[in-house]
Amino acid sequence: MNFISNFDDLTGMLAQTHGRKRVAVASPADSHTFYVVERALSEGIADFVLVCVEECKPDFADLATRFPGRVDIETLPTVDDAARRAVAIVREGGADVLMKGSMNTDNLLHAVLNKEHGILEPGRVLSHVTVTQIPAYGKLLVFSDAAVVPRPTLDQFDAILDYAVSVSRKLGVARPGVALINFTEKVNEKFPHTIYYEELKRRAAEGRYGDIEIGGPIDVKTALDAESGKIKNINSPVVGNADVLIFPNIESGNVFYKTLTLFAGAETAGMLCGTTVPVVVASRADSCESKFYSLAIACVD
Amino acid sequence: MNFISNFDDLTGMLAQTHGRKRVAVASPADSHTFYVVERALSEGIADFVLVCVEECKPDFADLATRFPGRVDIETLPTVDDAARRAVAIVREGGADVLMKGSMNTDNLLHAVLNKEHGILEPGRVLSHVTVTQIPAYGKLLVFSDAAVVPRPTLDQFDAILDYAVSVSRKLGVARPGVALINFTEKVNEKFPHTIYYEELKRRAAEGRYGDIEIGGPIDVKTALDAESGKIKNINSPVVGNADVLIFPNIESGNVFYKTLTLFAGAETAGMLCGTTVPVVVASRADSCESKFYSLAIACVD
Repeated sequence: MNFISNFDDLTGMLAQTHGRKRVAVASPADSHTFYVVERALSEGIADFVLVCVEECKPDFADLATRFPGRVDIETLPTVDDAARRAVAIVREGGADVLMKGSMNTDNLLHAVLNKEHGILEPGRVLSHVTVTQIPAYGKLLVFSDAAVVPRPTLDQFDAILDYAVSVSRKLGVARPGVALINFTEKVNEKFPHTIYYEELKRRAAEGRYGDIEIGGPIDVKTALDAESGKIKNINSPVVGNADVLIFPNIESGNVFYKTLTLFAGAETAGMLCGTTVPVVVASRADSCESKFYSLAIACVD
Repeated sequence: MNFISNFDDLTGMLAQTHGRKRVAVASPADSHTFYVVERALSEGIADFVLVCVEECKPDFADLATRFPGRVDIETLPTVDDAARRAVAIVREGGADVLMKGSMNTDNLLHAVLNKEHGILEPGRVLSHVTVTQIPAYGKLLVFSDAAVVPRPTLDQFDAILDYAVSVSRKLGVARPGVALINFTEKVNEKFPHTIYYEELKRRAAEGRYGDIEIGGPIDVKTALDAESGKIKNINSPVVGNADVLIFPNIESGNVFYKTLTLFAGAETAGMLCGTTVPVVVASRADSCESKFYSLAIACVD
């Protein structure tokens, strides 16, 4: 597989793929969702089943005419019905990706996490993975968790690392470099994540995550800037060249996400992992482009 | 006092101040420290007492000749001696600012925190304050704590907020807008900092921190970008316009610091607060400019 260094490469690659992914959208009604669905249809990167509430809005209904055979529409009375139905379509094999339309994330998650009818298998960790394109960094960067797991336990870190590495591989990185983020390089039992990091590195050495490089505890700057590593005399394979960042807690992951999008001109894409199919739950404040790239990431094999 | 919107304004203002500050430097020996001392002398923003180890290096010794009456030099056998002596000079009233030269921060802190001979009064909280100039943000931004207090208690948050607001006021902000940072706007007892934030707002309403605006829990993007606040429909006086950010833990503060300097073209200045005088302890990986601005911030009245 080719190495994908930016989002344009990604969508270009998806457009050339035979066998487009099918996306179930729960309650499409807003302009951002319309933008994403129409663009994905136009660029040929996905097909859709739109689970609308009450009556499907005309602009969405028109898509079925404009893209024959690529858009199915169902209509249900409430957003909760739509959420349950979209999840059921995934369970029945009718869609490869689930996408939130116009509803609160909690409504969709309620259906996703339902023990009987949901799409998170027992014992699996639900986590959020972000992919970002930072103009000052030469390749796509994967990081986690900025949105779901507040204080990862060892088991949760294990899953978070596994999901993030898997996304990096799908982007064509043969041997992802994983940086375990902290504010210093010190392992200190006062900071339990640094103890977990030691165990993650031990597991990585045993081959648990496949062919990866791993380093840390390390700070963000050292992980992404070779010069900082030199000054600090840190000898780690991921210094200045990380493909994946694992954050110690949700506050630090969230600050990274928000600071990048606000001040570094970064584009971001995100999705939930751990479920039987990727779930796109972009937030209100995300740009149209960010939502489109999120769908694209979820559609990569 | 004038509003200072960038570091050039700051150093320009200091140059015009009557009665320059006097800075005690513990173990000046490296090129970065030389840059800072020489530039501060040249621009007329500070005078120095250099506490050298073994023999003062020729380029530092030359400064005494080039800037007559503005540089004193003492020489001691070890870096620990130099640290203790620089602290003693401050205690004796011989300097208004303490600055680390070529030694580990721990060595200097050992002398600073000494119960008998140090400069942290009993019961005072030691904390780190950063001032940053972000090209995409129209004014200097103060934040804390990115370097010293790992998980602030209520008392520590109280002091951190007080110090940061005080720095913002020294930069000419009459009514600092303080944003209490979190990853969402929700108060949740699972995240103790959000409970502390409620108490900080209560204290602020009672006037404990003087004339300030305060809002939160709030995420970084909403605090610094008005558009994000509109989309999220958050009505807080600090939305999109914060002067001060208070971070929930050291990992998130550190990620903000590192991401800004790495990807947002930001300049930063930092110092320790809580001690009887400001202490400049820039780290190895900081740029010369960053170290110079740190000294400048420490010299503001």
